[in-house]
Amino acid sequence: PDKKLAASAPIFRAVKFCADGRQERFDIRKPALCQELGLQVRDLRFQQQTILQPRDTAIIIRMEEIKAIVSPDCVYILDHEEPRDKVLLGELQTQLEGDNSSPVAHLPLEFKGLEAILNYRISSLKQELDVLEPAILQVLTDLVEPSFMSVDRSKLRVLLQYRKSLTEFQTDVKDYVEVLTDILDYDDSIEEMCLTDKITNTMATSKSDHLSHVDEMELLLENCLGRAEDIVNRVAEVKDLIEDSEQIIFMNLDSHRNVMMRLNVQLTMGTFSIALFGMLGTAFGMNLLSSFEEDPKAFWIVTGVMFTGCGLLWRRLLWFLGREVPPNRKWSWKNFKSSGQ
Amino acid sequence: PDKKLAASAPIFRAVKFCADGRQERFDIRKPALCQELGLQVRDLRFQQQTILQPRDTAIIIRMEEIKAIVSPDCVYILDHEEPRDKVLLGELQTQLEGDNSSPVAHLPLEFKGLEAILNYRISSLKQELDVLEPAILQVLTDLVEPSFMSVDRSKLRVLLQYRKSLTEFQTDVKDYVEVLTDILDYDDSIEEMCLTDKITNTMATSKSDHLSHVDEMELLLENCLGRAEDIVNRVAEVKDLIEDSEQIIFMNLDSHRNVMMRLNVQLTMGTFSIALFGMLGTAFGMNLLSSFEEDPKAFWIVTGVMFTGCGLLWRRLLWFLGREVPPNRKWSWKNFKSSGQ
Amino acid sequence: PDKKLAASAPIFRAVKFCADGRQERFDIRKPALCQELGLQVRDLRFQQQTILQPRDTAIIIRMEEIKAIVSPDCVYILDHEEPRDKVLLGELQTQLEGDNSSPVAHLPLEFKGLEAILNYRISSLKQELDVLEPAILQVLTDLVEPSFMSVDRSKLRVLLQYRKSLTEFQTDVKDYVEVLTDILDYDDSIEEMCLTDKITNTMATSKSDHLSHVDEMELLLENCLGRAEDIVNRVAEVKDLIEDSEQIIFMNLDSHRNVMMRLNVQLTMGTFSIALFGMLGTAFGMNLLSSFEEDPKAFWIVTGVMFTGCGLLWRRLLWFLGREVPPNRKWSWKNFKSSGQ
Amino acid sequence: PDKKLAASAPIFRAVKFCADGRQERFDIRKPALCQELGLQVRDLRFQQQTILQPRDTAIIIRMEEIKAIVSPDCVYILDHEEPRDKVLLGELQTQLEGDNSSPVAHLPLEFKGLEAILNYRISSLKQELDVLEPAILQVLTDLVEPSFMSVDRSKLRVLLQYRKSLTEFQTDVKDYVEVLTDILDYDDSIEEMCLTDKITNTMATSKSDHLSHVDEMELLLENCLGRAEDIVNRVAEVKDLIEDSEQIIFMNLDSHRNVMMRLNVQLTMGTFSIALFGMLGTAFGMNLLSSFEEDPKAFWIVTGVMFTGCGLLWRRLLWFLGREVPPNRKWSWKNFKSSGQ
Amino acid sequence: PDKKLAASAPIFRAVKFCADGRQERFDIRKPALCQELGLQVRDLRFQQQTILQPRDTAIIIRMEEIKAIVSPDCVYILDHEEPRDKVLLGELQTQLEGDNSSPVAHLPLEFKGLEAILNYRISSLKQELDVLEPAILQVLTDLVEPSFMSVDRSKLRVLLQYRKSLTEFQTDVKDYVEVLTDILDYDDSIEEMCLTDKITNTMATSKSDHLSHVDEMELLLENCLGRAEDIVNRVAEVKDLIEDSEQIIFMNLDSHRNVMMRLNVQLTMGTFSIALFGMLGTAFGMNLLSSFEEDPKAFWIVTGVMFTGCGLLWRRLLWFLGREVPPNRKWSWKNFKSSGQ
Repeated sequence: PDKKLAASAPIFRAVKFCADGRQERFDIRKPALCQELGLQVRDLRFQQQTILQPRDTAIIIRMEEIKAIVSPDCVYILDHEEPRDKVLLGELQTQLEGDNSSPVAHLPLEFKGLEAILNYRISSLKQELDVLEPAILQVLTDLVEPSFMSVDRSKLRVLLQYRKSLTEFQTDVKDYVEVLTDILDYDDSIEEMCLTDKITNTMATSKSDHLSHVDEMELLLENCLGRAEDIVNRVAEVKDLIEDSEQIIFMNLDSHRNVMMRLNVQLTMGTFSIALFGMLGTAFGMNLLSSFEEDPKAFWIVTGVMFTGCGLLWRRLLWFLGREVPPNRKWSWKNFKSSGQ
Repeated sequence: PDKKLAASAPIFRAVKFCADGRQERFDIRKPALCQELGLQVRDLRFQQQTILQPRDTAIIIRMEEIKAIVSPDCVYILDHEEPRDKVLLGELQTQLEGDNSSPVAHLPLEFKGLEAILNYRISSLKQELDVLEPAILQVLTDLVEPSFMSVDRSKLRVLLQYRKSLTEFQTDVKDYVEVLTDILDYDDSIEEMCLTDKITNTMATSKSDHLSHVDEMELLLENCLGRAEDIVNRVAEVKDLIEDSEQIIFMNLDSHRNVMMRLNVQLTMGTFSIALFGMLGTAFGMNLLSSFEEDPKAFWIVTGVMFTGCGLLWRRLLWFLGREVPPNRKWSWKNFKSSGQ
Repeated sequence: PDKKLAASAPIFRAVKFCADGRQERFDIRKPALCQELGLQVRDLRFQQQTILQPRDTAIIIRMEEIKAIVSPDCVYILDHEEPRDKVLLGELQTQLEGDNSSPVAHLPLEFKGLEAILNYRISSLKQELDVLEPAILQVLTDLVEPSFMSVDRSKLRVLLQYRKSLTEFQTDVKDYVEVLTDILDYDDSIEEMCLTDKITNTMATSKSDHLSHVDEMELLLENCLGRAEDIVNRVAEVKDLIEDSEQIIFMNLDSHRNVMMRLNVQLTMGTFSIALFGMLGTAFGMNLLSSFEEDPKAFWIVTGVMFTGCGLLWRRLLWFLGREVPPNRKWSWKNFKSSGQ
Repeated sequence: PDKKLAASAPIFRAVKFCADGRQERFDIRKPALCQELGLQVRDLRFQQQTILQPRDTAIIIRMEEIKAIVSPDCVYILDHEEPRDKVLLGELQTQLEGDNSSPVAHLPLEFKGLEAILNYRISSLKQELDVLEPAILQVLTDLVEPSFMSVDRSKLRVLLQYRKSLTEFQTDVKDYVEVLTDILDYDDSIEEMCLTDKITNTMATSKSDHLSHVDEMELLLENCLGRAEDIVNRVAEVKDLIEDSEQIIFMNLDSHRNVMMRLNVQLTMGTFSIALFGMLGTAFGMNLLSSFEEDPKAFWIVTGVMFTGCGLLWRRLLWFLGREVPPNRKWSWKNFKSSGQ
Repeated sequence: PDKKLAASAPIFRAVKFCADGRQERFDIRKPALCQELGLQVRDLRFQQQTILQPRDTAIIIRMEEIKAIVSPDCVYILDHEEPRDKVLLGELQTQLEGDNSSPVAHLPLEFKGLEAILNYRISSLKQELDVLEPAILQVLTDLVEPSFMSVDRSKLRVLLQYRKSLTEFQTDVKDYVEVLTDILDYDDSIEEMCLTDKITNTMATSKSDHLSHVDEMELLLENCLGRAEDIVNRVAEVKDLIEDSEQIIFMNLDSHRNVMMRLNVQLTMGTFSIALFGMLGTAFGMNLLSSFEEDPKAFWIVTGVMFTGCGLLWRRLLWFLGREVPPNRKWSWKNFKSSGQ
C-alpha cells in the first residue's frame, strides 16, 4: 500500500541549483524529495503563506508563491512558473556562481541561497510598494482638492481598491518580519540555520580570525529584517496619510455643504420676503372693491411698498443670519455684491 | 455522603476511541471518568470556551462545542452530538487506524488524537471563514457601488450581522492561537504534552536516529498555530476592508448629498429670480391705475423685462455659485444643457 | 504617644471565619489586627481597587467593595455590608465547613478562602455582564432598525449609560485579570500564596502521591483567570458590536437623508417649473393690453402652454436628476407613480 | 579654565533637609553640589520630564516641576518655588521628624524622602484628576442633552481644552508609571535604591526578624505604582466616555437633522401642491376669454377644485413619504394634527 | 577581476576627525574604507534609514541623512553636505578638542563621537518639533473657531501637510528610540559599544574608583533615549489634539448646519402659509363671478383673512417646530424678534 500511496503523492516541478550554479529541471514526487533531502513528509506541506524553518538537513522556505528548499549542497525552487520567477532564478545563479561583490561570497552554499531568496523577496516587496505608494498619493491629491464640492466617486472606488492592496501588502511584509524575528529571537534557531556547521560540527570554533558563521547568519537576517522594517514604516505612513486625507475630505464636503446651505437659507429668505409682500399685490389683484381703484397714486404707492418692503425685510433677515451664523471672511455675501458690480 | 454525591454528579455521553480505532459509546459519571483517567474533578469542569491543558495522565481539550480527553491509551469525545461531530469522529478513526500518509503515523496515540482534533478544529474554522469572507465581500461590493445615492438599508443590517459573526469568529481563532501559544512558549509544557514519554520516562533519549517526541509535538503544534495565524491575518484583512468600505460609503453618500444640494441651490436661485420678477407682473395685475393700461407696447415691455430680467439674474446667481462652489468637471450644469439640447 | 495613635486608628468591622466555618463578628482597630496577623500597617491601607498580595503570614485581598484577609488559620472579611455580602459569607461558610464536591476540600484553609472569594468575585462579574449584555443588545436592535429615519434619542442616552457601565465593568475585569497574572507570571509568587507550606516548610516535598500544593494553587488561579478571560472576550465582542452598530446607524441616517434630499430636489424641480410657466399666466393677468384679450382661443392656448410646458420641463429635469444621481432600485420615483395609480 | 567654567555653571536654589527634619536654604552651583553628593555633572542635567534614577550615593528625582536629590543623609529640593511647593516641603518635614503612623518611620532616611516625594506627586496627580473629571462629566452631560438640536459651541471649545489637559495629564501619569516600572522590573535596580544598605553593605542580611530593606523598598514603590495605575484606569475611562459621548452627540445632531429634513419635505410637498393648483387660479386670472366669465357657479367650482385638489395631492404625497420614509412613532405628523386640534 | 570590482565601487566623500579634533577631507572607495577600518563590505551598505550597530572595530551609524563611522581612533562622517551638516561637524570638533563641561570629556574617543552625533540628532529632531508643533496648534486654533459655519479649506490642506510631516517625524523618532533600545536591552550590546575596552580587554576592571566605561555608555544612551521619549510623548499629544480638534470641527459644522436647517424650516413654514392663504387672493383674482364683486367690505375681509390666517398658521407651525425640535437657548427665534425691535 505504501507504494501506491507514494504513487498518488503530489508532484513538484523542481529546479535544482548545485553549488556551482548549474541548473537541473525535473519533476519529483513529494516522498522522493523528502527522502533525498532527509526531510519529513510534513515539512513539505507548505500550509502557511510564509515559512522559514530550519530542519536538520535543510531550510524550508515559502514566501507567498515562492517555495524553496535550501540544503548545504543545493537549492531547490519548487513549483516555479517561468515568467514570474525568472528574476529569482537569475539571481540565484549569480550568487551561486560566485559574485565577488556579494557579502556571502566566501560562505557556505546555504548562505548564498538564503541571501538570494530573502533579498529577492524583500526587493520585490519594495518594488510593489514603489508602485503602490505614488498611485495612492496621486488619488489622494485628487480627492483632497479643496475647491471641489463633491468627490469623484470613481476615484473613491480606486482608493478602496488600493487600500485593499495595501492591507494585503502589509500582511505580507508583517509575515516576512515575523518569520525573521522568530529566528533572530532565539540563538538556537540562528545556529540551526547554519546547516554546514551543524553537519561538520564546527559551530563556534575558528572564531579567532573572522566572524563565525552564526554571526554572519545573524547579520544576513538582520539586514533583511531592517529593510523589511523600513517598508513596514513606509506602509504605516501611507495608511496614516490615507486616514488623515479622508478626514480632510469629510471636512471639505461638510464645509462646502454648509456654504451651500447658507446660500440656500439666504435665497429662501429672499423668496419668503417676496412671497409676503407679493401677497399685497395679489390682494389688490382680486376682483373686489378696494376703493383705491381710481386713485392715480395708489398703484405707485402699493408697488413701492411691495418692492421696498420686500427689500428691507430681506436685508433684515440677512443681517440676522449674518449675526447668528457668521460666515468666514472669504464667503460673505458682500463679496458677491462687490464682485458683481 | 460521597456515594450520594457521586450519584448526583453530571453524566457525560462519551465516545471512547482505543488505540486501534475501535469505538465504544457509553454514558459515564464525572467522578467515574476522573478515576478511570487519574484526573482531578476540577479538570473536567470545562468552564472556559477553549482549553488545551496537559495533566499527568491525559490532555484535556475543549474547543467550543468539542470536549475531548486524550490519554496515552485512548481518546474520549464527550457530549458529542451526532450530525455535528460526525466528521471529527471519522477523522479520529482514520488517524487511529493508521493512515500512513499522516505525519504522526509512527507516533504514540496522543499525537494521533491531538492531530485529529486540532486539525479538525482549524479546518472547520477555515471552512467557516471560507463561507463568511465571500459573503461579506459581496455585501460590501453592493454597498460601495458609487452611482447609488442611498444605500440599501436591508443590506446594512446583513452587514452588521456579518460583522458580529466575524468578531465572534475572531475571538474563537484568537482563543485557539492563545492556547497553542501558551503551550509552545514553555518547553516544559511541550514536554508535558508527550504523555507516553512521561510515563515511560524516555524523554530526550533515543534522539540519535530521528526527531525526539518533544520535537515532533512542537512541530505538530507549530503547524496548527501557523495555519491559525494565516486565518487571523485573513480576518484582520476583512475587518480592515469593512472599515475602509464604510468610509468610502460615507464619502459616497456625502458626495451625492452635496451634488443634490448644489442642484437644489441652483433651482432655488431660479425660483428666487422668478419670484422677484414675477412680482412685477403681480404689481401690474393689481386693479389700480398704472397709467400704462392703454399703452399697446407696455404689455410686451413688462413681459419682456420679467422674463429677461429673471433669466439674467439667474445666470448671474449661477455664475456666482460656480465661482464660489466650483463643481467637479463631471457634474457641471453645462453638462445638462449640452446634453439636453 | 503610640497608644494615642493606636486609639485614633480606623476601626474595621470584621467577620472572622475559623477553619471549621464558625463565624465571629467584632470591631477591631487596624493596629490590633496587624499585630494579630503579623502584618505591617501599610498592608491594610487598601489604597487600590483590586489587590491580591501574599504576605508572610496572610494573603491580602481587595476586590472593589470586598476586603478580605486570608491567613492559614482563618479568613477575615472587613467592612462587610449585610445584604450585599450575604452570598459571599454563605459561600465562605460552605467551603470551610467542607464541601466534598469542591476541588479544594482536601487542601489547607487558605485554598478554601481563596476559592470562595475569587470564585464569588468572578461569578458576580459574570452575573453583571449577563444582565448588561442583553440590555445593550436590545437597545442596539432598536436603534439599527433600518426603516426609521431618525433614532429615538432617549435610547441614545440609555446606550451612553450602558457604554459607561461597560467601560467600568471592563476595568474591573482587567484589574482582576491583572492581579492574577501578576501572581501566575512568577513561580515565587505562587509559592508565596501557599501560606501553610511556607510555615511548615514542606514546599515541594510529598510530591510523589499527588499534586503539590503549589500546583494546586496554580490550577486554582488559572481556572479563575480562564473564566475572567472569557468575560474579557465577551466584553470586547459587545464593544465591537456597539461600534459596528453605530456605524450602521450613521449610514442609515445618512441614507435616509439622501432619500429625503432627493425627494426634495424633485419637488423643488416641480415648483420651479410651475413658477416659470406660472409667470406666463401672471403676465397675461396684468392690466395691460396684450391684444389677445378678445381672442377666444388665446385662453386655452396659453393655459395649455402653461400646464404642458410645466409638465415637460419637470419631466426633463427629473430625467436629468435620474441620470446624474441614479436612485436605488427600490427608491425610484416610478415606484411612486405605479403604486399611486 | 576649570575655575572659570565652574563660575559660569548654573546655580540651584536648594532646600536641604537633614535627617532630623531641619531645613537649610541656600544657593549652590552645580559643580559644588555634584562634589558634595559624589555625583557626575551629567546626573544634574534634568533633561527629561520625569526621572527616578538611583546613583551610587543618591537618588535623582524629577517629577515635572519638582527636582529633588535623596541621599542617605539628607534630601535636597532644587529650584523650588514657594507657594507651589509648600505642601511638599511640609510633608517632607513631617516624614523626617518621625511620623509614627508612617509605614517608613523605622527605615533609613532615603525611604522617608522617597515616600514623601512620590506620595506627594501621586496625591497631586489624583487631586488634579479629581478636579478635571467632574468638570468634563458636566460638559458632556450638557452636550449630550438629547432634546437640543444644536450644541452649544462654546462648550465644544471648553471640551477641547479639557481633552488637551486630559491628554497631558495622561502623559504625566504614564511617565510616573514608567519610571516606577523601570525600577521594579529589575531586582538590581531596587537594590540600588537602598542607598544606606549599599554603603554599609548590609544588603540581604538581618532578614530573620523582619522584612529586609529591599522588600520594604519594593513595597513602597509598588504601593505608589498601584495608586498610579488606578489613576491610569480612571483616565482611560474618562477618555472612553468622551469618545462615546461624541458619537452620541453626532447621532443626536444627525437625527435632529433628519427630523427637520422630513418636516421640510412635508412642507415642500404642500407648497408644491399649492403652486400646482394655484396655477389654475392664475390661468383664470388672465385677461383672456375663458367663456366662463359669466357662469355664476364657475368661481365656486374652480376655487373648490383648487383647494380640494391641492389638499388631496398633498395628502397623497404625505402618504407616499410616510410609506417610503416611515417616521419614528414619536415624530409622526399625525401627532401634530391631533395635538393641534 | 577584484581590482576592477574595487575600481567600480562607490566613492564616499568623507570627513575624518582624529582624536585631537583635526579634520581631514578626502574621497575614498568603499573597499578601501572597509580595509582601513577592518569592516566587512556589507557593513557599509547603509540600506536602512536608521542604524546604530557596533562592529568589532567600529560603530556604524546612520540617522537619515547622516552617515558616520566611529572607531576608537577617529570619527568618519560620510557623504556630508556642507550647509546642512555644518553644525554637526562643529559639534564633533568641539567634543573632540576636549570640552571640559562635557560629561564625556574624560572618556575614550568613541564616547565623544557618539555623544556628538546622537545629541546632534536628538537636538535637531527637537528643533524640528519646536517648529512644527506651534504651527499645527495655530492652524487648529483657526479651524476650531466656533463662530464660523464653514472651515477655511486652504487651511485644511495645510493641516493635512502638517499631519504628513508629523507622521514622518514620528517614524524618525521611533526609529531613533528603537535603535537605542535594541542596544540597551542587551548588556552584551552595550559592552560591544565600548570599542576601546574591547581592544584593550579592560572591560569591567578598574571599577573601584569610578563608573566603568560600560556604565558610562549606558548612561549616555539612556540619556539620549529619555530625551527621545519626551519627544515621542509630545508628538503623541499633538496627534491626539489634532484628532480631538477634528471631532470638534465636525460637531461645529454639524451644529451650524442644524441651526441653518432650522432657520430654513421656519422660513419654509412661512412660505407655505403665505402660499396657502395667497391662493385665496388668486381665487378672487380670477375673472369669474364670485358675487362679492360689489361688496365694499369684501376686499378688506378677504385681505384680512389672507394676512391674519397666514400669520396664525405660521405661528402654529413655529410652535409645533419649537415643541418637537427645541432650540438651544441662544438660538431661539424669539431672540431675533426681540433684538429686531
